[in-house]
Amino acid sequence: MRLLLTGTTAARGMALGRARLVQPNRHLVDKRPLAEEEIETELGNLHRALDAARVELRDLREKLHGALACEVSEFIDTHSLLLDDQELLRGLDDLVRIGHYRPGAALKKQRDRLVAVFEAMDDPYLRSRKEDIDQVINRVISALQRQTSVEERKLAARVGEILIADTIAPADMAHLVGNGLLGVVASSGSAYSHSAILARSLDLPMLVGVRDALSTIHDDDLILLDTERGEVVVHPTAQDLALYRAKQREAAQEGRRLATLANAPTRTRDDIGIRLLANAEMPADIAMARARGADGVGLYRTEFLFLRHKGLPSEDEQFIAYRDLVLGMGGLPVTIRTLDLGADKADAAGLVLRGEDNPALGVRGVRLSLRYPAVFTTQIRAILRAACYGPVRVLVPMVTQPDELIAVRTLFKLARQDLKRENVDLPEKLALGAMIEVPAAAINVRALLEHADFLAIGTNDLAQYVLAADRGNDGLENIYNPLQPALLRLISHVIGAGRRAKKPVSLCGEIGGDVNFTALLLALGLNEFSMHPSQLLHVRDRLATLDHGALRRLAPQLMRAHTHEQVEALLTKIAEESAA
Amino acid sequence: MRLLLTGTTAARGMALGRARLVQPNRHLVDKRPLAEEEIETELGNLHRALDAARVELRDLREKLHGALACEVSEFIDTHSLLLDDQELLRGLDDLVRIGHYRPGAALKKQRDRLVAVFEAMDDPYLRSRKEDIDQVINRVISALQRQTSVEERKLAARVGEILIADTIAPADMAHLVGNGLLGVVASSGSAYSHSAILARSLDLPMLVGVRDALSTIHDDDLILLDTERGEVVVHPTAQDLALYRAKQREAAQEGRRLATLANAPTRTRDDIGIRLLANAEMPADIAMARARGADGVGLYRTEFLFLRHKGLPSEDEQFIAYRDLVLGMGGLPVTIRTLDLGADKADAAGLVLRGEDNPALGVRGVRLSLRYPAVFTTQIRAILRAACYGPVRVLVPMVTQPDELIAVRTLFKLARQDLKRENVDLPEKLALGAMIEVPAAAINVRALLEHADFLAIGTNDLAQYVLAADRGNDGLENIYNPLQPALLRLISHVIGAGRRAKKPVSLCGEIGGDVNFTALLLALGLNEFSMHPSQLLHVRDRLATLDHGALRRLAPQLMRAHTHEQVEALLTKIAEESAA
Repeated sequence: MRLLLTGTTAARGMALGRARLVQPNRHLVDKRPLAEEEIETELGNLHRALDAARVELRDLREKLHGALACEVSEFIDTHSLLLDDQELLRGLDDLVRIGHYRPGAALKKQRDRLVAVFEAMDDPYLRSRKEDIDQVINRVISALQRQTSVEERKLAARVGEILIADTIAPADMAHLVGNGLLGVVASSGSAYSHSAILARSLDLPMLVGVRDALSTIHDDDLILLDTERGEVVVHPTAQDLALYRAKQREAAQEGRRLATLANAPTRTRDDIGIRLLANAEMPADIAMARARGADGVGLYRTEFLFLRHKGLPSEDEQFIAYRDLVLGMGGLPVTIRTLDLGADKADAAGLVLRGEDNPALGVRGVRLSLRYPAVFTTQIRAILRAACYGPVRVLVPMVTQPDELIAVRTLFKLARQDLKRENVDLPEKLALGAMIEVPAAAINVRALLEHADFLAIGTNDLAQYVLAADRGNDGLENIYNPLQPALLRLISHVIGAGRRAKKPVSLCGEIGGDVNFTALLLALGLNEFSMHPSQLLHVRDRLATLDHGALRRLAPQLMRAHTHEQVEALLTKIAEESAA
Repeated sequence: MRLLLTGTTAARGMALGRARLVQPNRHLVDKRPLAEEEIETELGNLHRALDAARVELRDLREKLHGALACEVSEFIDTHSLLLDDQELLRGLDDLVRIGHYRPGAALKKQRDRLVAVFEAMDDPYLRSRKEDIDQVINRVISALQRQTSVEERKLAARVGEILIADTIAPADMAHLVGNGLLGVVASSGSAYSHSAILARSLDLPMLVGVRDALSTIHDDDLILLDTERGEVVVHPTAQDLALYRAKQREAAQEGRRLATLANAPTRTRDDIGIRLLANAEMPADIAMARARGADGVGLYRTEFLFLRHKGLPSEDEQFIAYRDLVLGMGGLPVTIRTLDLGADKADAAGLVLRGEDNPALGVRGVRLSLRYPAVFTTQIRAILRAACYGPVRVLVPMVTQPDELIAVRTLFKLARQDLKRENVDLPEKLALGAMIEVPAAAINVRALLEHADFLAIGTNDLAQYVLAADRGNDGLENIYNPLQPALLRLISHVIGAGRRAKKPVSLCGEIGGDVNFTALLLALGLNEFSMHPSQLLHVRDRLATLDHGALRRLAPQLMRAHTHEQVEALLTKIAEESAA
């Protein structure tokens, strides 16, 4: 019987597939005690499973590049360390050898013990570690089951399946997509979570907040995921399927039409030129950016070089990455952002920092770089050397006040002097820009413009600070909204200040590549959009339908809005009028 | 030989006393194994020490009221739970009974085990728990030593001593002040940490960042703590002591002079009236506020009712607290702030929330209250009933957007209807105000003014969000600064919007009661200051020396400043001119 569940769209797309349920904390294990003669065999099985889990995590890390790696590696690190924890391992061995537990039962027992300790702590941070333990133990149990059963191995493959879960960790999502997963239905979670962002960059359709999904859907039910309507259709009818096929054909047609835009100029309906830049990290991004006619790279994230392996990347390693990027863009300008890590990730890069209660409000971005001038100088030297191969701009993240830009300029000057002394080729003067993501930087932007050659607005973090709402916190969805008037006023203020100072201002948050926000950003005066290269054609297409002059005239009305609901209503009106 | 160390002033005052060093992680314990016949006696000693530590924590909690309780109770809760942890207790018993460890050695062994587990975790949050374990184990070891040695008991008393430590936990500071501690010298730490705020409200002189304190100063050295100069003088000379006595006499004189201001009106030099309000929580605050001529209570924090014991306070319990406050102020207006807790503290109040990565950017203040409408309604009913006894205003914390105020008004309306049906006396309409501490609320303040009857600017949190800098993070001292131009512009914007809407605006952050900021706030147009009652006379005294008109004319110049250093230079110039 056809059933309909609704949720919130976290990543767009349509998918038709078999349901695969993941119930939280499911540990089905054989509890019969081991016979004496089975012990050594089972210990061997246990250790092979532990090894398999370790290898899985290692493989996973190696398969991930760029943004993916940044998002996911934190989780992988925690899990890898748990797998090597001596207490845990000794405890497991004792349970099997002395307690005659089967490996699966021993894992479950250890899990319960550890979880009990964490739960007793009554500290929310510690209690949340429970999830990590569950995920690690589940991974080992899965590895164990794959050893002992062919059926289990089949179950682990996800080709043609749509995952139904409470939430999904970024690492698991990355892993499952590689195995052919078609979509995700989460019964909780937020559209602004790391998993949701990852799903969007993986082009994996995802609905969140589908409350009854786990109790209503069964394994192997045929389901149709329609994110356009925010619906999951369980047991779709012939009519549903016909509609799905029609939409598939439409999407394929639309794809072919968009492809013709790859070499078209980016202009509004009233013929105003707009610059489209790409956010990039890995070679595939660069290739896509060029193929789709980006005007340059607006944001090249360098964190992945630091998170790819433990320890800091050498100057040469960084130089080669940056030089290849510059060469790859064939003369188009490239904006390299200096290291943007916080205390929550910096230790993975080998930088030792104290734990912070609120890492989002901590020592991160340029604050961190200036604390490690030797590490920062290595990056600066690599950038300077790479800049001999094409036009490079340097973007400084998490700037709050002018003295940070002054300090960065000084470090560049000193690095130039050193390189000159070493007879290394040096580029012309590089443009130095500031990310505008701290509210104080947006408010006090004129002070920064005296020291910056260009600006890039990072709306994801700016929204988070302006609204005092962590974008990963799914309890704040009604607050964390890019249409909040306060955020729009800051964006407009920064764009206006840049125009008056005759310095370029781009925007590289998630809304930059979302066609639902293109009209709004034009109205605010933006003329440089930076986005994931997969979004370039969509935004170019949308821009061609928009009247720049008419939108700019609407800006004062947008600035007067009091609530994000009012902004949304205005935008809907604008869209209807321009369609009419 | 006279030695001079310098640091940053965290709490003002002067102190002369003996040095008492607390080296981090000092566990001096007797390692000889126990004889069989000693075991039961020593087990008894161990458990008495554990009980003593539990009682200490309980006493500590009961001795603390109001703000102190809020700051400290989180730590106390964590520590109490550790003391009741069954794994820990069983492990200790086994070590004594089976391993023949003396109680002190057993505690040390368990500490090392637990710390090793946490350190292996490689998660900064977990690693920081190490400090809690150390503090708890140290407390039990101290209790144990007090049982077995008279000398140790003497050491525990702090009369006439100045503590020299790396950092100090708020709970320990509260405890030591009760024992007669005169001052604190910390080798690390920040002037904006919870300990520093606590030291200021306890009037306990404190220097932080005195780098070599632990290696240079010795136990029982005579030291002179001079926070005015940011100096510690080790082995002060006769000249130093004469200077100290002169300053002491000066301070006593100044105290007598200030006392004469208790019943004076609050006016600037050019005779503009200013309202001075008190931040209050406990009966002593109310008494002091009245004795020093406050114009009312600008901020009554209600968290202590929720944190005083586990579980939620009843409506009657809250009603009595609020009514006594209203009666205590004898007809002067009282501003009651509704519950202002975040996920990091809410579980102590019996509200269950998921752990958050960044609790400062999480579900807190009104966001939390609206999530628990039944809990919130209990508070609302208690406020409505108390408001029959005198003028009451209601202040809503952590407001981001208008719909939150609309929701609170609705809950008040529903509670009124219910109380009416129950034939309970009801007050006239209560004024409902918004705390302005989220940047979006400050930027979009005109939207909030349509729904708020008054505003209160909370500069501590506003600064934290505007600067994306946790005020408890001692790595961000150059950024977290109340003179940041962006913060001043937001404050000025809010005050101006309130004036145009003819609605009162007060300011109740730490700078409201700091005479170093009085001229600045007057220049920004503030005419309602709210502060700890101990600061009322100082601010009234300072206001009488300031020319309101002249300062207001300087506002545009302050608004044009680009850096906090420029603001500071301007303020110094203003101070010099007004002194001339």
